[in-house]
Amino acid sequence: MVTLKDIESAHERIRPFVHRTPILTNSSINKLVGAELFFKCENFQKAGSFKIRGATNTVELLSDAEFNKGVATTSSGNHGAALSMAVSRRGGSTKVVMPHNTPKIKVNNVKRNGGEVIWCDPDQKFRESVLRDVVDKTGATVVHPYNDERIISGQGTCAKEMIEDVPLLDCIVSPVSGGGLLGGTLIAAKNMKNSIKVYGAEPEEADDAYQSLKSGKIIPNKTINTVCDGLRAEIGSKTFPIIQSLVDEIIPISEKDIVDSLQMIWERMKIIVEPSCSISLALILKNKPIFRGKNVGLIMSGGNIDLNNLPWKS
Amino acid sequence: MVTLKDIESAHERIRPFVHRTPILTNSSINKLVGAELFFKCENFQKAGSFKIRGATNTVELLSDAEFNKGVATTSSGNHGAALSMAVSRRGGSTKVVMPHNTPKIKVNNVKRNGGEVIWCDPDQKFRESVLRDVVDKTGATVVHPYNDERIISGQGTCAKEMIEDVPLLDCIVSPVSGGGLLGGTLIAAKNMKNSIKVYGAEPEEADDAYQSLKSGKIIPNKTINTVCDGLRAEIGSKTFPIIQSLVDEIIPISEKDIVDSLQMIWERMKIIVEPSCSISLALILKNKPIFRGKNVGLIMSGGNIDLNNLPWKS
Repeated sequence: MVTLKDIESAHERIRPFVHRTPILTNSSINKLVGAELFFKCENFQKAGSFKIRGATNTVELLSDAEFNKGVATTSSGNHGAALSMAVSRRGGSTKVVMPHNTPKIKVNNVKRNGGEVIWCDPDQKFRESVLRDVVDKTGATVVHPYNDERIISGQGTCAKEMIEDVPLLDCIVSPVSGGGLLGGTLIAAKNMKNSIKVYGAEPEEADDAYQSLKSGKIIPNKTINTVCDGLRAEIGSKTFPIIQSLVDEIIPISEKDIVDSLQMIWERMKIIVEPSCSISLALILKNKPIFRGKNVGLIMSGGNIDLNNLPWKS
Repeated sequence: MVTLKDIESAHERIRPFVHRTPILTNSSINKLVGAELFFKCENFQKAGSFKIRGATNTVELLSDAEFNKGVATTSSGNHGAALSMAVSRRGGSTKVVMPHNTPKIKVNNVKRNGGEVIWCDPDQKFRESVLRDVVDKTGATVVHPYNDERIISGQGTCAKEMIEDVPLLDCIVSPVSGGGLLGGTLIAAKNMKNSIKVYGAEPEEADDAYQSLKSGKIIPNKTINTVCDGLRAEIGSKTFPIIQSLVDEIIPISEKDIVDSLQMIWERMKIIVEPSCSISLALILKNKPIFRGKNVGLIMSGGNIDLNNLPWKS
C-alpha cells in the first residue's frame, strides 16, 4: 500500500515539472456555507488538471528500456493529456486510447501535448481491448489512469501541498472516480494530520464507489449518465482498499446540484473548472451542518471543459 | 490634472478595502506571441472589476454631509456594482441608473452589493436625464463612472501595482471606454517608469477615443454595436486630455478578434474575463511585431459576464 513516504518522494521527483497551484478563497461562498473554504486550483495546473502529478511521477520512474518502447493509456482525456505532456517532456511518444464521445477540448489537449489519439467505442471493454492491441504491437508500457501505486502517490502530492499551505485544515472534499486522487489524498491527509476528515464526492449517476463501500466489495457502475465526464471510471482494485480503510464518507450528488455549483464557481470566483470538480462544492452546499465553522479544502481537480457545450442553457 | 501623488494617496486610502489582485502568466500564449505577458487579474477584484478602486477612493473622499444624502450614478453595471459596494461598506445608500438591456449578472451585482436600480432607456441621453431627476429629488451626490479626478486616481492604482510587481514591464495594454482606467494607467505608468509604452484597445464598433485622438477633439461614438458592454461609454472631458498627451497609440479591434481572444483566455488560462478586457489580448495578437521580446502588462479589467448569453455558439 502507498505510504506518506511514497508521496513525499513523488513530490520531490515531480517538483521541477509541475506547478504548485494557488489556493483561492471567496468571501461570498464562505458566507453562504458558514465555513472557510480553500479551493486548491488544479484547474491552473499544467495540462489543465491534477493528472500531471501522477503521470509525471510514473514516467520519471520508467527505465530507459521501458520508456523507449513508448507509453500507452486509456483515458477520458485529462490523464491522456497529462501523460502525453510528461512523456513528451522526457522525449518519448504516447498512444492514447480514447472514446469517440470525448469532449473536443480534451482531445485537443492530448494532441497539443504530443499524444497520438487511438479512437475506440465508449464502452470500457472496447477501450481495454484496443489498448491490448497497441501493447501487443509495440511493446509500449501501459500507464493506467489510477490503478497504479505510482499514480496514487503522485496524486497525493496535491493534498500534501494543501495541508502544508493551510495547516488549520479540518476537512478535505475530493471528487472520486477511479480513486487515484481520493486514494492519494487519504494517505497524505490521514498521515500528515490524523484529525482531518476526508469526504469523497461522487455523481449519483456513477456511484460505484459509494455502492462498493456499502457492499464491502467492488460493484460496477450501473450508469455513467453524468455531466462529470472525468468521473465515469470505475473504482480500482488498488484504490478501493485505501478508500475502504480511510475515507470518512462518500456522498452521491445529483446532476442538478453539480451544475448549480459549477455555475456558482464560475460566476463568483471567475475561474473555469469542470463539473467533475465543482461536485465538491455541491457536496458542501447540500451538507452544510457537517462543515459549519470548519476550514475545508476542496480540490478543484481540473478546468478542461468544452466551451461550446456548456451544461446550462446559453 | 491628476498626478502620480494623487494615485499614491488613493492607493493608501483604498488599500484596506480592495484586493491587491494577482498577476498570472501563461506559457502557451507567451509562445504564440513571442513575448512575456503579465495578466493583472482585476476579474478577481472585489465586485468583479477594477471599478472598486476609483469608487472606493471617491466614496472615502466624500464629506459626511454629502455622503448622508446618498450617492447616485449612471453605469453599465461594473461601476454601479462597485460604487454600491463602496457606499454600503461606509453605511450609505446608492441609486444606480441603468439601461434596460444591461446583462442580468451586472444588475444582480448591483443589487447584491446593496445598490438600488433605477431603470432607463439605453440611450445615454435618457440616462443623464433620469439621473438629474434623482439628484433633484434627493440631493444625492453623483459619482460619475470616469469623468472625475478621484475616479481616475483610483483606477491608476491598478497600473501602479503592476509596475511594482513586475518592474521589468516594457508596455501596458489597457481597454479604453470613458478613459478612467486608461487615463489613470497613463499617469501612473509614465511617471513611474518613463520608458513604458501604453496602448489603448478599443472596439472598432465604439471607436470614439481613436477618432477623437485623430481629430484632436472629442468625437462621439457613431455606433456602440459591440460585444464589449463595458466599452460603450464616450471619452470624457477630463480623461481625453490625459490620453491625448500621454498615450502611445489607440488601436481599434474587430468584434471577431475580441471574441476569439476571449475564448483563448477562457480555454488556456481557465479564468473568466469579460470581452471588455480580452480586447487587450486581441490587440497584442493582431500586432505581434510591436510586442515581440517585450514584457507586456495586460489589465484584465473585469469578469462580469452573463453565462447564459456567451458570445460564441454554445
